[in-house]
Amino acid sequence: MKGKNPKKTILVSVVMGSDSDLPVMGEAAKVLDDFGVGVELILTSAHRAPARTAAFAAGAKGRGVKVIIAGAGAAAHLAGVIASHTPLPVIGVPIDATSLRGLDALLATVQMPGGIPVATMAIGKAGAKNAALFAVRLLSLADARLARKLDAYIAQMAREVEKKQEKLVWPAS
Amino acid sequence: MKGKNPKKTILVSVVMGSDSDLPVMGEAAKVLDDFGVGVELILTSAHRAPARTAAFAAGAKGRGVKVIIAGAGAAAHLAGVIASHTPLPVIGVPIDATSLRGLDALLATVQMPGGIPVATMAIGKAGAKNAALFAVRLLSLADARLARKLDAYIAQMAREVEKKQEKLVWPAS
Amino acid sequence: MKGKNPKKTILVSVVMGSDSDLPVMGEAAKVLDDFGVGVELILTSAHRAPARTAAFAAGAKGRGVKVIIAGAGAAAHLAGVIASHTPLPVIGVPIDATSLRGLDALLATVQMPGGIPVATMAIGKAGAKNAALFAVRLLSLADARLARKLDAYIAQMAREVEKKQEKLVWPAS
Amino acid sequence: MKGKNPKKTILVSVVMGSDSDLPVMGEAAKVLDDFGVGVELILTSAHRAPARTAAFAAGAKGRGVKVIIAGAGAAAHLAGVIASHTPLPVIGVPIDATSLRGLDALLATVQMPGGIPVATMAIGKAGAKNAALFAVRLLSLADARLARKLDAYIAQMAREVEKKQEKLVWPAS
Amino acid sequence: MKGKNPKKTILVSVVMGSDSDLPVMGEAAKVLDDFGVGVELILTSAHRAPARTAAFAAGAKGRGVKVIIAGAGAAAHLAGVIASHTPLPVIGVPIDATSLRGLDALLATVQMPGGIPVATMAIGKAGAKNAALFAVRLLSLADARLARKLDAYIAQMAREVEKKQEKLVWPAS
Amino acid sequence: MKGKNPKKTILVSVVMGSDSDLPVMGEAAKVLDDFGVGVELILTSAHRAPARTAAFAAGAKGRGVKVIIAGAGAAAHLAGVIASHTPLPVIGVPIDATSLRGLDALLATVQMPGGIPVATMAIGKAGAKNAALFAVRLLSLADARLARKLDAYIAQMAREVEKKQEKLVWPAS
Amino acid sequence: MKGKNPKKTILVSVVMGSDSDLPVMGEAAKVLDDFGVGVELILTSAHRAPARTAAFAAGAKGRGVKVIIAGAGAAAHLAGVIASHTPLPVIGVPIDATSLRGLDALLATVQMPGGIPVATMAIGKAGAKNAALFAVRLLSLADARLARKLDAYIAQMAREVEKKQEKLVWPAS
Amino acid sequence: MKGKNPKKTILVSVVMGSDSDLPVMGEAAKVLDDFGVGVELILTSAHRAPARTAAFAAGAKGRGVKVIIAGAGAAAHLAGVIASHTPLPVIGVPIDATSLRGLDALLATVQMPGGIPVATMAIGKAGAKNAALFAVRLLSLADARLARKLDAYIAQMAREVEKKQEKLVWPAS
Repeated sequence: MKGKNPKKTILVSVVMGSDSDLPVMGEAAKVLDDFGVGVELILTSAHRAPARTAAFAAGAKGRGVKVIIAGAGAAAHLAGVIASHTPLPVIGVPIDATSLRGLDALLATVQMPGGIPVATMAIGKAGAKNAALFAVRLLSLADARLARKLDAYIAQMAREVEKKQEKLVWPAS
Repeated sequence: MKGKNPKKTILVSVVMGSDSDLPVMGEAAKVLDDFGVGVELILTSAHRAPARTAAFAAGAKGRGVKVIIAGAGAAAHLAGVIASHTPLPVIGVPIDATSLRGLDALLATVQMPGGIPVATMAIGKAGAKNAALFAVRLLSLADARLARKLDAYIAQMAREVEKKQEKLVWPAS
Repeated sequence: MKGKNPKKTILVSVVMGSDSDLPVMGEAAKVLDDFGVGVELILTSAHRAPARTAAFAAGAKGRGVKVIIAGAGAAAHLAGVIASHTPLPVIGVPIDATSLRGLDALLATVQMPGGIPVATMAIGKAGAKNAALFAVRLLSLADARLARKLDAYIAQMAREVEKKQEKLVWPAS
Repeated sequence: MKGKNPKKTILVSVVMGSDSDLPVMGEAAKVLDDFGVGVELILTSAHRAPARTAAFAAGAKGRGVKVIIAGAGAAAHLAGVIASHTPLPVIGVPIDATSLRGLDALLATVQMPGGIPVATMAIGKAGAKNAALFAVRLLSLADARLARKLDAYIAQMAREVEKKQEKLVWPAS
Repeated sequence: MKGKNPKKTILVSVVMGSDSDLPVMGEAAKVLDDFGVGVELILTSAHRAPARTAAFAAGAKGRGVKVIIAGAGAAAHLAGVIASHTPLPVIGVPIDATSLRGLDALLATVQMPGGIPVATMAIGKAGAKNAALFAVRLLSLADARLARKLDAYIAQMAREVEKKQEKLVWPAS
Repeated sequence: MKGKNPKKTILVSVVMGSDSDLPVMGEAAKVLDDFGVGVELILTSAHRAPARTAAFAAGAKGRGVKVIIAGAGAAAHLAGVIASHTPLPVIGVPIDATSLRGLDALLATVQMPGGIPVATMAIGKAGAKNAALFAVRLLSLADARLARKLDAYIAQMAREVEKKQEKLVWPAS
Repeated sequence: MKGKNPKKTILVSVVMGSDSDLPVMGEAAKVLDDFGVGVELILTSAHRAPARTAAFAAGAKGRGVKVIIAGAGAAAHLAGVIASHTPLPVIGVPIDATSLRGLDALLATVQMPGGIPVATMAIGKAGAKNAALFAVRLLSLADARLARKLDAYIAQMAREVEKKQEKLVWPAS
Repeated sequence: MKGKNPKKTILVSVVMGSDSDLPVMGEAAKVLDDFGVGVELILTSAHRAPARTAAFAAGAKGRGVKVIIAGAGAAAHLAGVIASHTPLPVIGVPIDATSLRGLDALLATVQMPGGIPVATMAIGKAGAKNAALFAVRLLSLADARLARKLDAYIAQMAREVEKKQEKLVWPAS
């Protein structure tokens, strides 16, 4: 497979600005795949490939995509630029790619002016994972089967906290 | 009306941690109302009223709510706490309520650890407005009439930029 | 032992949001143990296990716990959420767990709005150690024997500074 | 009255580095007074009056003081310096007194190295109020009557959130 | 005049994301006008009017424009988006338009990833003025008359410093 | 070669404050060399060699230099000091050389007061590369052959994004 | 008087980058005058008047000046540039002159690379006052009469703290 | 030698808060030793050894010390506390000792309120080296031989920049 799972209808596009972002954005794809949600991986750059980015964003809804997750570092314009070319919900993941440790990407993603929203997640892998989980919450509104999986996932997280308590040995050393 | 428009099915809860947040969070309610989306205003505090907050969040889905928008300032835990009690998508709006100018609220809202996502918007009124627009994007996925309104809104924004160019007189003075 | 020393009455709960926080929060437990204060280690998550967290916090006072120390990273809500469910003094330790190096956890812990206080310590191990020492100061108010140990500890710290002067060899190389 | 309520045993010293800090630190004194806790106001400076500060701190325990609340702005050393001269629990309130909006005072108060803890609250009035509430939590451990007042206060806060919901009129205008 | 001086060949486009940016970006236009450089004022938004922005940027070189100055606040993508659609030199001016005081706009403008440069100036009016002066430096490379004006301007600045010394009266009061 | 390519007319000076900056600033020189633009490497320090720096800057235009790129870390005054001694366009590259990760160098370079502009790029290697590309954009205004190379470079960047899409294999592992 | 007190030997130059800095830097001059130290006010700009700045700095020692205090805002290069042209001790005062509230000036002043030191004070008026007091401490090393004045000043500060305690009336209102 | 060079009159005390600061503060001692200035190394802690710190500071002038250099990390109170107990000039060196990379130590050292100055240097080794060079500048005012050494040092720095230019080989690889 090259960037997409051919067996499923693609509902979520996971977009990244550089192939070096794959270790982070792969977390989003993995979670969506675990939930059985069809996902594609798109590499495009707001700055180096603006026409490709605009075409991707403008065409996504027509292809049946429901949610776009976009991750980028530095002056991270990718999510905002995509959101300006589509009425779909766009989720942004700031990536820690410069010496400023993702603070630049966070502010460039989250501080969107009124009119074009980008739903911003935490910097890095936690954010990529949560972007996928947010997409699942969103898709669950119209998919009862997915909603049940989500409920099970949430319940399982709580149980795992309890299990980890059992394994907590002190003193650590 | 006291915090809700009785004529419509409530699809979005706009929650705030303090009545002093109303001038900011009212922006979200106003946009949703303009789009004809049923909205309620909820005042609750993650810290001063934790049981009320948990009950609200746990009950929202059962009442037919589809999206929750939560705004708070300072160590803004409200959106995260609500997200931990519901499988609904939760949108967070950081509010500039301390001397740190909303940076505290932004980080306390956006930096959620993996597992429980909060879709974070910009600090303040721009963020509140975008939270509503993001909810509209999300609800449009299953509501073709709302999707048409959204398309019209997006097209209108572009036209207004052109109109403002016409009015741009230089030098300003 | 699994997270608690069975021989002593538990006076302090050391709570952490993730087992990866143990190397930091273990510092607090170690100091309390050195002072002979009964301590338990609790793993719970404000977000992934909200009911467990609320139950723990609401029940702590009834179990005889006097002080709660809570450490968490990222959008660190744990201490604040616990403080909202108990009248006990809660001490927060921000943990450096993201690319923002603990600044997120610090602001999310310390900037509590008026009404529910969290006594915040420094980011990381120094903060965990000081959380324990603050608990000792607090418990010493009603425990003369512990107060004497604390006085001895403080005097010993001053003596050790003098000893280190003796060992200071210059130039370092 | 000049800085102290003569009718009560002083349990809490509220210390400030400058008389310009009184509007902030007065919040702490007011809350303590409301709870019926004896409080004194002390003005001293870690830098301009170091001997006075050391003498105050070293003598506080002997005078029956149980908790010290210290507020200062800029390079806020006051709480740390006091904590180095007393085994009592010391609570620090960073004050927004420079162009850096209290970030300097926050870091100078909270980032204490291991050994001498300062329990830090939020910047400004919210922090001063919470410092007092934290002192009340702490004193309640050994004072059942105060503990009942604290429980009532906490319950009242939750009720007030509900009352404010009733008054929430939308749209704001 | 509506946004352009009809008597001169337009060499510099001064672009802004919102009409509220005119008081800042007007500084750039004023300086260019003082130097006799033809300037146009363009209002367009990377997010609300992406097609207009791309068309403007792609067409600028063909219209004879030599330099583009773009100012925007918040998650300031305007300069970067323009730079991705033109080979002309693009100068970015971050504007203080949110509670983060322009830090967001600065990082979103300056931290461009490798490939598409944006020459970033200081936040606000000083930056807008310097953007114009930088354009003059750049245009002076191929325009000896403009170069002489620039030399005179630089010499005049130095003389004015000396004049201000003469007027310096102390004590101020 | 020692710091310059003898076969070409030098159009761009790449200046650095310390030889430890060479790995960063070498990126600028490499890009310029790839475009066939004559480049020299200059090592000088605003602070340790002020006379040398002033002489270099004052003489650059006379030697035929068209653009100066200056990189420095810490309190990075180099670009500003050079810009005060020449009417040539000066591009600044902040370097991550201290524990503050280049934030100090960024602010010391970009926040120039009105009068003397420095065109600031991103912190580090991306900024050095973009400084060179900005110089190419600028020189292309008067050099049609260079302009064609730049167009080809921009087109090639877009094609490479598409090629990377082809190679994108998921899941990463 | 125009920038200098003719009756005294000038020992300290108080330099500022702009006449708008006079309300801040005047604090330094006032303190020095109160101590009877001869002081001159110099207006010069590292960027707009580099030759004047270099000449001033290079000539100061020869004119009998012992200490230079330099205040500037934004990318505050003034103190560093002066220090590079004189062996005299140079004290820097960062001024809050931009939307970044003096953080830019602080970092541009204090983060000097090894070799050329600038003794940095706090941002703004407190820093200007302390710059003068530091100059007094320094000059007192060789001036017993000034040393006695300094001792008296320090003792007086401590007494004033005590007096303010007397006036502390609570509650404030 | 244990922290002091017995052959010389001690003119400068280099003080540090922890023996882990020696690699940083040793830079200061080394530079002073190279200039032939008598230097002692003192280890004391503002918090863990307040009496020792006060005694050291109060006694330094009487022992003939002329300048005190104090380095500390975290909530770095050491320089400020020393300055409050002596009329000698005190130079502060912020040390990068926590996850906040020295920003905490910088603000806690430099933002001293009016009355008690601390001359602050850059974070870390560059700051320690410059603290020593500043002490040399200061002592040179009354020591012509040291002044000549300083002039030679400054001239040598400039020459070394030129030498490094000669060695600059490009491309680096």
